[in-house]
Amino acid sequence: MSFQAPVKDLLFNIEHLARIDQVAKLPGFEEAGLETAQAVLEECAKFNEGVVAPLNVAGDKQPATFADGKVTTTPGFKEAYRQFTEGGWQGVQHPEAYGGQGLPKTIAAACAEILHSANMSFALCPMLTDGAIEALLIAGCEKLKSTYLEKLVSGQWTGTMNLTEPQAGSDLALIRSRAERQADGTYKVFGTKIFITYGEHDMAENLVHLVLARLPDAPEGVKGISLFIVPKFLVNADGSLGQRNDVHCVSIEHKLGIKGSPTAVLQFGDHGGAVGYLVGEENRGLEYMFIMMNAARYAVGLEGVAISGRAYQKAVAYARERVQSRPVDGSLPGSAPIIHHPDIRRMLMTMRALTEGTRATASVAAAAYDTAHHSPDEATRKQSQAFYEFLVPLVKGYSTEISLEVTSLGVQVHGGMGFIEETGAAQYYRDARILPIYEGTTAIQANDLVGRKTARDGGQFAKGVAAQIEATEKELLASGSEAAKSTAKNLAAARKAFLDAVEYVATNAKPNPNGAYAASVPYLMLTGNLVAGWQLARALLVAEKQLAAGQDAEFMKAKIATARFYAEHILPRTSSLRDAITGGAASVMEMALDSF
Amino acid sequence: MSFQAPVKDLLFNIEHLARIDQVAKLPGFEEAGLETAQAVLEECAKFNEGVVAPLNVAGDKQPATFADGKVTTTPGFKEAYRQFTEGGWQGVQHPEAYGGQGLPKTIAAACAEILHSANMSFALCPMLTDGAIEALLIAGCEKLKSTYLEKLVSGQWTGTMNLTEPQAGSDLALIRSRAERQADGTYKVFGTKIFITYGEHDMAENLVHLVLARLPDAPEGVKGISLFIVPKFLVNADGSLGQRNDVHCVSIEHKLGIKGSPTAVLQFGDHGGAVGYLVGEENRGLEYMFIMMNAARYAVGLEGVAISGRAYQKAVAYARERVQSRPVDGSLPGSAPIIHHPDIRRMLMTMRALTEGTRATASVAAAAYDTAHHSPDEATRKQSQAFYEFLVPLVKGYSTEISLEVTSLGVQVHGGMGFIEETGAAQYYRDARILPIYEGTTAIQANDLVGRKTARDGGQFAKGVAAQIEATEKELLASGSEAAKSTAKNLAAARKAFLDAVEYVATNAKPNPNGAYAASVPYLMLTGNLVAGWQLARALLVAEKQLAAGQDAEFMKAKIATARFYAEHILPRTSSLRDAITGGAASVMEMALDSF
Repeated sequence: MSFQAPVKDLLFNIEHLARIDQVAKLPGFEEAGLETAQAVLEECAKFNEGVVAPLNVAGDKQPATFADGKVTTTPGFKEAYRQFTEGGWQGVQHPEAYGGQGLPKTIAAACAEILHSANMSFALCPMLTDGAIEALLIAGCEKLKSTYLEKLVSGQWTGTMNLTEPQAGSDLALIRSRAERQADGTYKVFGTKIFITYGEHDMAENLVHLVLARLPDAPEGVKGISLFIVPKFLVNADGSLGQRNDVHCVSIEHKLGIKGSPTAVLQFGDHGGAVGYLVGEENRGLEYMFIMMNAARYAVGLEGVAISGRAYQKAVAYARERVQSRPVDGSLPGSAPIIHHPDIRRMLMTMRALTEGTRATASVAAAAYDTAHHSPDEATRKQSQAFYEFLVPLVKGYSTEISLEVTSLGVQVHGGMGFIEETGAAQYYRDARILPIYEGTTAIQANDLVGRKTARDGGQFAKGVAAQIEATEKELLASGSEAAKSTAKNLAAARKAFLDAVEYVATNAKPNPNGAYAASVPYLMLTGNLVAGWQLARALLVAEKQLAAGQDAEFMKAKIATARFYAEHILPRTSSLRDAITGGAASVMEMALDSF
Repeated sequence: MSFQAPVKDLLFNIEHLARIDQVAKLPGFEEAGLETAQAVLEECAKFNEGVVAPLNVAGDKQPATFADGKVTTTPGFKEAYRQFTEGGWQGVQHPEAYGGQGLPKTIAAACAEILHSANMSFALCPMLTDGAIEALLIAGCEKLKSTYLEKLVSGQWTGTMNLTEPQAGSDLALIRSRAERQADGTYKVFGTKIFITYGEHDMAENLVHLVLARLPDAPEGVKGISLFIVPKFLVNADGSLGQRNDVHCVSIEHKLGIKGSPTAVLQFGDHGGAVGYLVGEENRGLEYMFIMMNAARYAVGLEGVAISGRAYQKAVAYARERVQSRPVDGSLPGSAPIIHHPDIRRMLMTMRALTEGTRATASVAAAAYDTAHHSPDEATRKQSQAFYEFLVPLVKGYSTEISLEVTSLGVQVHGGMGFIEETGAAQYYRDARILPIYEGTTAIQANDLVGRKTARDGGQFAKGVAAQIEATEKELLASGSEAAKSTAKNLAAARKAFLDAVEYVATNAKPNPNGAYAASVPYLMLTGNLVAGWQLARALLVAEKQLAAGQDAEFMKAKIATARFYAEHILPRTSSLRDAITGGAASVMEMALDSF
């Protein structure tokens, strides 16, 4: 089955939920209205449907290979990447000053979803480059910027993020890689980094590694980590490539999924030291990382939406084709396509509702980011930044956790065929499994949501979100349709569950940290669920108005049905989560360690 | 990490929940008391830990291969299978008359869980043989029984079940394989069967295929299907092997998991017709299958428990070893094994509670089966049979669905390492994915639970189960401990949710079949969740008494903690499911087909 980018749904969100008309009023985004969004997304869809998506299975079946320090990517990837860079796709969200298109995140995020949906393994390379660009923009000196940014924004060179070491995953305080100051102002970097996505490959002429390491006199723990740029090839003064640097790929991993993306073990400095350039100031590496992290986490959240959408499409196609059994309501005389069976419909609607709900949240978060960075009004910037930061752990944590559910349902819809690799549904199931892990596990996101985003201000910001949701409930009740009333009822119950949970974590974070943090993932799932349901409720209100105005009836009816399904089937999960959060803290830590 | 069979927990269930003392009072089971159970399980653990479990990874890495019509199993499988048969393990639950040990299912089921936990791919071969034995016992004539049963019970020959065809999966009415009567009373069988587990292999000298096919003059649909035995090698009058029969493996599948078990496409009759022998009467094949199916479904449910238990063990071992971050409660001065972190504990406790809960349900179901088949009292037999039949879709559906959750959490506990195939956690995640599909998908189980087991008698039997649960709540309240009170409260809420759901499906099954069957899987998940929680609540009561009597304090405390965790964290899911069931039927089928 060929991939079809969900352009219509993305544009609906961009227009009505993210409010691109408002984004286009921000300084610098005057050209970025709905028409631009539509033109960019249609072009993006065309490219990814035609060039990138057809390589998705190949990436899985013929993963990148490693030999003699070199990584050869899946046949076709290199050529597709060339076309990707030629199309200017790497630069969509990056500054025009460095050759980018300078489009708002509201549009760029939709492009990223399409790319990831087409081929997650392929998309990881540009995604990591985005991370490197972001780091340089945040903290790089002019020299580093002028040397690297243009090549990265064009995609001619690609970027990597080198954080993890065998003993240091979630806990970066344990990093042992070290850097030594050199007389010429550069550094020599030594150490082993693991799980480096596209840490070595053949699609670009140079790789720009961003590496966390410690200076000899650095303070212990996270306050003694510095950030370095270590290019694969040194760059001459004229910008041409010079000597090979002392960073080498020693192996790539054999993974459950995203097999098309090489995951490298990189060895720095085994032959005298890898030449590195300090980014920003010494010992502030983790600080820069934290600024970037919101962007990276958001991007991984989009991957969750993307793979969910792809799995949904495939399941629908199969459910339309596969003939099996007579409908239970007797509506057809004999065996029918399984899409007629209620449980298949329940599964497809669940997949659809979760996908559209998380997509809507991501779109709204993108607009908040744009406002936070471009509004001329400081208060607006601050409020939008706080909203964006509140949403990021939800986009990352909830969208990726639900991608496990959605891709699993995708397998289930296929029955026995789902378990056969050639069918392709299993690949999504395998690929998705990394998403709640990398770029901060769900627990890490949840700790962030509990600690920085909820408990720190005693739950005030979270309660403000609840107040906004309550306003949506009132609009729904005013609409008065059956769908709106049912949605309002379920949204209100979920909001109340949320407030109970906010109260619990805000009250317990300090006096009873085990209780609060044992509840952190359920709290994240509750909040992510609610916010996605809220966005779909807003979508329902828009769709009702559009429908009344005679706009695109089929699409609007489907949106209403999907939003209502979410409200009736997914939002109720919040009450169970609330009960587990508020009534179950003690039993999490009760059992003796030796009894496990 | 080496596998350790959960003998202690199995024996606790057998003694206190399944009540082996009562089973041992049944005619024919006089020798099958707790001591026998303990001796058999310890021996079983020793064999599987030492011989079968070490081949689990090999099965995944070096799956069975196919060439020239022959299947070669993973190195080591053949020798392990020889030892399996020599130990008499195939015959544990089968009649002594055919060389089996004639043990109750209460004990045999525990053996099966251990075997599946050790190596699911390996265990499938004996499991399919069990199916073939069951079919012959149910419907075979004396001639067939005397020819085949002893060899199957010893494991010298293995059995297969041939139901599925490319166009006929869940819908067996669509079967096209055909059989022609021969003058000598035999049949010639023609057709293609797919997804045949161990349909061809090199571990046994003969394979006994049970095949569903149609006679030329058979009625249409499910009432025109007959059951045949088609041996790979014909059997001479003296029991020796004769001519090769016309059934051939043409390929094996490339699967997501259980790679060690060859899944064959079998071609019957391409060279003149495969010689087949009618089992029972013509056109009654599906009826026999339905009798067997409870046994087969129960067995697959055990696989869910088994793989959950294995994934739990591995996750615990990693969580004890992996050092990362300081505990959030400051209880340790520096980075600690991750088992100290509340979210890791939440994940491990969830895995443990789900595993122990489903294990307990399975044990109780096995005892009901034994009583149903061996009680001298007809009313008791009938009541026990009804209880067993009510539990089977839960054992199959709930245990396998939760095995997806448990094995996924197992990956998550491992963080990035979980995604690396060499770690082994991913194998369980992949292996488990077939369980909610084969031997009737979860939807098929759920339809059975809604239709035959609930709606048919207007929900009366289900309400009787609820009354038993209420009695347990009273015992919990009488106990008065904090754990018992909290468990009683959550159990009561879950029971009420169940009664609401029973009312809904019983009332809607006829007038509103789409509504009832759209709710079927949520209803199954609710019921399975409740029954497992109920059994753990019973276990909690036992453990409190044992603890008071000074018995095995560490185990009993852990059981109480696990039961309480289940009550506080897992049982609350029932209220969400109830809300989706009773409030969301319309939105499942609302969206237009073209809008998907």
